[in-house]
Amino acid sequence: MNETPLVNPEVVSMVGDWKGYVEAKMGFRNHWYPVRFSKELDEGAIEVIELLGEKLLIKRIEGKVYAMRDRCLHRGVPLSRKPDCYTKDTITCWYHGYTYRFQTGELVNILAVPDSRLIKRRKIVTYPVQEAKGLIFVFLGDEDEVHDLKKDVPPGFLDDDLMVLGKHRIVNSNWRLGAENGFDGLHIFIHKDTTLRHYRTFNFPIGHTPLPGAVQLVEDADGPKGVTDDFAQHTPVWDGVIDGEVVVSGPRSTAVKGTSAAAGTSIWLPGVLKVENFPVGGLIQFEWYVPLDGERHLYVQTIGKPCSTDGERRTFANEFETTWKPHGLDGFNADDIWAREVTEPFYADDYGWVDEMLCEPDETILEWRRLASRHGRGIQQKSDLR
Amino acid sequence: MNETPLVNPEVVSMVGDWKGYVEAKMGFRNHWYPVRFSKELDEGAIEVIELLGEKLLIKRIEGKVYAMRDRCLHRGVPLSRKPDCYTKDTITCWYHGYTYRFQTGELVNILAVPDSRLIKRRKIVTYPVQEAKGLIFVFLGDEDEVHDLKKDVPPGFLDDDLMVLGKHRIVNSNWRLGAENGFDGLHIFIHKDTTLRHYRTFNFPIGHTPLPGAVQLVEDADGPKGVTDDFAQHTPVWDGVIDGEVVVSGPRSTAVKGTSAAAGTSIWLPGVLKVENFPVGGLIQFEWYVPLDGERHLYVQTIGKPCSTDGERRTFANEFETTWKPHGLDGFNADDIWAREVTEPFYADDYGWVDEMLCEPDETILEWRRLASRHGRGIQQKSDLR
Amino acid sequence: MNETPLVNPEVVSMVGDWKGYVEAKMGFRNHWYPVRFSKELDEGAIEVIELLGEKLLIKRIEGKVYAMRDRCLHRGVPLSRKPDCYTKDTITCWYHGYTYRFQTGELVNILAVPDSRLIKRRKIVTYPVQEAKGLIFVFLGDEDEVHDLKKDVPPGFLDDDLMVLGKHRIVNSNWRLGAENGFDGLHIFIHKDTTLRHYRTFNFPIGHTPLPGAVQLVEDADGPKGVTDDFAQHTPVWDGVIDGEVVVSGPRSTAVKGTSAAAGTSIWLPGVLKVENFPVGGLIQFEWYVPLDGERHLYVQTIGKPCSTDGERRTFANEFETTWKPHGLDGFNADDIWAREVTEPFYADDYGWVDEMLCEPDETILEWRRLASRHGRGIQQKSDLR
Repeated sequence: MNETPLVNPEVVSMVGDWKGYVEAKMGFRNHWYPVRFSKELDEGAIEVIELLGEKLLIKRIEGKVYAMRDRCLHRGVPLSRKPDCYTKDTITCWYHGYTYRFQTGELVNILAVPDSRLIKRRKIVTYPVQEAKGLIFVFLGDEDEVHDLKKDVPPGFLDDDLMVLGKHRIVNSNWRLGAENGFDGLHIFIHKDTTLRHYRTFNFPIGHTPLPGAVQLVEDADGPKGVTDDFAQHTPVWDGVIDGEVVVSGPRSTAVKGTSAAAGTSIWLPGVLKVENFPVGGLIQFEWYVPLDGERHLYVQTIGKPCSTDGERRTFANEFETTWKPHGLDGFNADDIWAREVTEPFYADDYGWVDEMLCEPDETILEWRRLASRHGRGIQQKSDLR
Repeated sequence: MNETPLVNPEVVSMVGDWKGYVEAKMGFRNHWYPVRFSKELDEGAIEVIELLGEKLLIKRIEGKVYAMRDRCLHRGVPLSRKPDCYTKDTITCWYHGYTYRFQTGELVNILAVPDSRLIKRRKIVTYPVQEAKGLIFVFLGDEDEVHDLKKDVPPGFLDDDLMVLGKHRIVNSNWRLGAENGFDGLHIFIHKDTTLRHYRTFNFPIGHTPLPGAVQLVEDADGPKGVTDDFAQHTPVWDGVIDGEVVVSGPRSTAVKGTSAAAGTSIWLPGVLKVENFPVGGLIQFEWYVPLDGERHLYVQTIGKPCSTDGERRTFANEFETTWKPHGLDGFNADDIWAREVTEPFYADDYGWVDEMLCEPDETILEWRRLASRHGRGIQQKSDLR
Repeated sequence: MNETPLVNPEVVSMVGDWKGYVEAKMGFRNHWYPVRFSKELDEGAIEVIELLGEKLLIKRIEGKVYAMRDRCLHRGVPLSRKPDCYTKDTITCWYHGYTYRFQTGELVNILAVPDSRLIKRRKIVTYPVQEAKGLIFVFLGDEDEVHDLKKDVPPGFLDDDLMVLGKHRIVNSNWRLGAENGFDGLHIFIHKDTTLRHYRTFNFPIGHTPLPGAVQLVEDADGPKGVTDDFAQHTPVWDGVIDGEVVVSGPRSTAVKGTSAAAGTSIWLPGVLKVENFPVGGLIQFEWYVPLDGERHLYVQTIGKPCSTDGERRTFANEFETTWKPHGLDGFNADDIWAREVTEPFYADDYGWVDEMLCEPDETILEWRRLASRHGRGIQQKSDLR
């Protein structure tokens, strides 16, 4: 063995019933991940994406999107460095003319060696692609593991009347620090100065502890696997006290004194959060922490709203652009992005997983780590990148 | 074992009676190190410092300085990234409200989880701090190893009448290359063009070899441990000769032909040099090579002068600013800083310690390596950083 | 063992009869390599060069060029960082005055320690240097392995009447990707848009497959070792076809329909290509892929022409500057440089050597790998750099 292992084996050996989670530094293989919004990929356009350490090309051909490894079989060069698409459904390697069909990955010709026996006998890796709710999902995994998309998205996300809008950006932290930051009930402490506080129903404690029964596991065979945390069954903390003095308090709306805007959160494999009644009642935030490699994730942020008329849809689209995107996805979540990136160095050499000192409410995060270890369908390894 | 060892074990096995010195790439633990000048840290101010690979926060509270590990116990984030000091003697982690008392390191509260059992039962690492001669010293080590500061500074440094002035800067080399550059009797070859030559009594050979008896070990149980080198017992070399021709000569004062300005040097644990009668007679240069990590050191340069009246102190302060700082600490020592940084790559992979080809006068450096191996109170390891 | 091996042993174990080639990541030791053009090094000038991972100083003294390791024996510093040449045939280390004679490497004095027993008993590494055809060649290897330069250059290169002109530049890829790009008969696919197509006799297929007998091994005991590939015995491919449609064609001269400009290529140890009748009939391109380290090579590009009169030489020099340098060495070969650099990441961790999927005509490249493994006179190792 000569390659440095992806994850320090000493650390893996030191954790208990969530070893698989520690090993999944580059993500869980054999799951569906959103990679772009549908509207970002026009007919005929090619885009290079990263997913679980792999470089892929996606292309839309006659409306449908296809995904193929962005590396020529011959000499391993990226096809994307000079994409020669002589026909609409093939791409030809700029170096020696190896030509692949997007739909199947088949080597259809080698332009410089048209009589090679390799032709039609070799395939480049391709992955299934599906579009839903305006997102392009790629199944990053093995052919015999493909399953229904609905098993990899939170309940409700595919509902017919749900309109989904969003954005994405790259975050310089491991995907798990994204997932844990999102699901972590305590991190609301960092949001105490959010401009969302100026919205009527926005009330936010500085902390809150789950009571027995707040946290539930969802492990039905036919559905997504996740952990839910019901904020109605939490004890909120409104004031922070040091040496007997109140030094900081959670934001409450100046208009209406009410409960926290969010009704609860849930985290689902392969790494997607659902926040109910957020940023305000009636909306749902869904966000993915898509592993790009071991050090970065694509933060796919969406907000969904049930809409039954075109008018409702126009109103939501307008609200999204003027309010929820700037104050929620950009402003509020900027604190989260920053927190994940600052946390990254402690976990980068894996020792953070054993050196951390979790407190009682972090038990919800441990439930997520255990669930992910039980139900993750495969651990992406360095050898999968070759 | 999965971590790369700090020091190549093959190299350690190849050196004889100074293995500990080779292992101390990040410095000797359980010693006092200067980290800032007292005047650089105002009441209530916080500063982030590095010391032997650790990141620390220092803060002055009611006049006294405290030092605490700059990493929250919970998720390992640096407290300093957004220092929330709600009370004068505590710091609260910006992420989840873990709050620590500077004086003790005690976890006094978790603002978001005020009923956690961890509160008052956990401590963040703190280190003793002491101020002397205008410098802030931190004891980087274990509680049961704390000892008197006087054991870690050169003789005379704490003398009542000694006035000490100085500066510091970061040098991109291991601390040992700093120490050896300073104590090395031969490296004066690089100083032959110094502007200090224009000072009356400044005479400097291009080399000098210690006669028997010049080098002495100081290993008293109650005092600092060091090696002294008396230049009065050296044979100076004034001219460099190649193929029978004099090609270069050491600088001699144009005003007074005398001996070398320096009367001798000594090097002390944990890495501090004393140069007597330097830059000119009547002054003493003390300089520390404080390990920041394995690749950089803080070069703390000071000049001391015995002063008994305010007038003498004013005169020295004025001379320091106009002469000894610009021509000595800035100008003369710039050559040394440059030399250490250029030497670093040869020793960076540790093989330099066995591939070097020392010459006879370098025996003084070997004495230092052996003494440091015998008396260093602990070797900072990667595991100490966790 | 603590050092990371230069080449992944798992990969070495997986290749068959060309293990030595895979191991020679930093090049083959004990061979002659061109490092600069003669006209680039004036009398008395010093230049720092890199070769197979080693840093060398070359200097011209009374017309002759000498090469010496650029690292002082004492503390390992580069002599070149501040070259003190007090006499024309010595260099003195700026740090402590170790002084070496360029012709022999002998430590002739230590200016700061003129009575050291090391003097005249130690040597710094030197390497033989020879000039030919306007190039400075260095023999990078051991004293008892020195052999005639003619064994390390392609046949014809040293011919009396051959005039050679050229240039060099650094390429960010391993030297083997340079050699294989040059010798690879199929990579002409990337040159289909070259501006050389505007020259009368320039015709270039998009691919061509060697017929039996095209490829020959040259392994005479007294001469250079290489593989030759005769393009007259190739089947050219003029058109690239996908799904029955011609999508791309090779460039043919608009003036004269003829054969490919090149008559054939050959590759020689230690990594030098000869292209006959190139860029046009009557010229020969010789190019070297000189390993600088494991990641970069010096691309030494030359064009030779037999000239018997001063007039012919002037004409060729003029043509070289106005045509062959800008359109050939700069323009045409820019595609090659780009291709090597883009290929580098796939081979950087060595797995490319087993993950690549070669096609039938790549057999010529395999012949080269096997020949190099059989006849390479030594494999440069990390320990050779110490």
